[in-house]
Amino acid sequence: MYVPEPISKLIEGFMRLPGIGPKTAGRLAFFVLSMEEEDVLDLAKALVRAKRDLRTCSVCGNITDQDPCYICTDQKRDRSVICVVQDTKDLMAMERTREYNGLYHVLHGAISPIEGIGPDELKIPDLLKRLSDDTVQELILATNPNIEGEATAMYLSKLVKPFGLKVTRIAHGLPVGGDLEYADEVTLTKALEGRREI
Amino acid sequence: MYVPEPISKLIEGFMRLPGIGPKTAGRLAFFVLSMEEEDVLDLAKALVRAKRDLRTCSVCGNITDQDPCYICTDQKRDRSVICVVQDTKDLMAMERTREYNGLYHVLHGAISPIEGIGPDELKIPDLLKRLSDDTVQELILATNPNIEGEATAMYLSKLVKPFGLKVTRIAHGLPVGGDLEYADEVTLTKALEGRREI
Repeated sequence: MYVPEPISKLIEGFMRLPGIGPKTAGRLAFFVLSMEEEDVLDLAKALVRAKRDLRTCSVCGNITDQDPCYICTDQKRDRSVICVVQDTKDLMAMERTREYNGLYHVLHGAISPIEGIGPDELKIPDLLKRLSDDTVQELILATNPNIEGEATAMYLSKLVKPFGLKVTRIAHGLPVGGDLEYADEVTLTKALEGRREI
Repeated sequence: MYVPEPISKLIEGFMRLPGIGPKTAGRLAFFVLSMEEEDVLDLAKALVRAKRDLRTCSVCGNITDQDPCYICTDQKRDRSVICVVQDTKDLMAMERTREYNGLYHVLHGAISPIEGIGPDELKIPDLLKRLSDDTVQELILATNPNIEGEATAMYLSKLVKPFGLKVTRIAHGLPVGGDLEYADEVTLTKALEGRREI
């Protein structure tokens, strides 16, 4: 079947994105044809700029357009707490809560022997460097609540023991709005273990 | 929450595409950051080119990068048949069958009083112009099998009556691989009406 080359190129381009198969890519490509030229140019420019202008913050590993990043340079933030997360999307999820006012450290992954990711592949040396002065009092381990995340949290908690600071792990338990009936056993056990007096 | 501007721009850009909400847009934007720069540039270029280089064929209304389009200029195709479809995606679906070797006419829509689309909004005058010489012997109405598509087919069949050519409508019936048990009544009735001797 003959498809004009500009369309087939665009379909190919969309198909490189995650979760977009040939059908969706075709639908998106035809939608682009019906968009205003200005909006299409904006999207094209945004793609190039996102790739060219963004780098990781040399302090915390966050994705940023200035180095050090907005969070690291913000003088209003509490410099005595560092929250360790696996990637920038987790950092953004934390920021959305508007409850946390400390700094972050992005590991860019978690320890996973299956995928061949050991501690050396993560931004752990940078973290240790940040702990070496006395500003930091607490390290919050906010890696994901799965095997890799737990292993990473466990590894880090042992690694930073010599620094003598408070190391905490975010709580496991039932998600708000959830239902006991549908909770899995492990989560429910953790929720029970983590019970607090009210 | 602070998100670096190049990322938020890209998320906004992706959100203009159909079926892409904030979550998916965010996921796509972060994926772009992890892509090779060359691939990102390719996608950006494909977007701009698709918008700039494509137009509708002045003969059949197909989307094309040359005018008249590849199908209209292909001398191997049967010029005595024109298949009328609602849009370019339908044309491509027909082409995928590899069974049809005639020409097309793309209406760019269907008659829909609810959406305020009357015959004047469609490329019907262009179609009548094509029928005015004697080359065309058959007109296949391949508009969609729904109310708008049927209304359009009905309207066209009456309109082209004076030209005295063969007017056909694609068959309704059970989809191949389907199951009688799950077929709706209307489709089954149509399948029965359209039965053929074997």
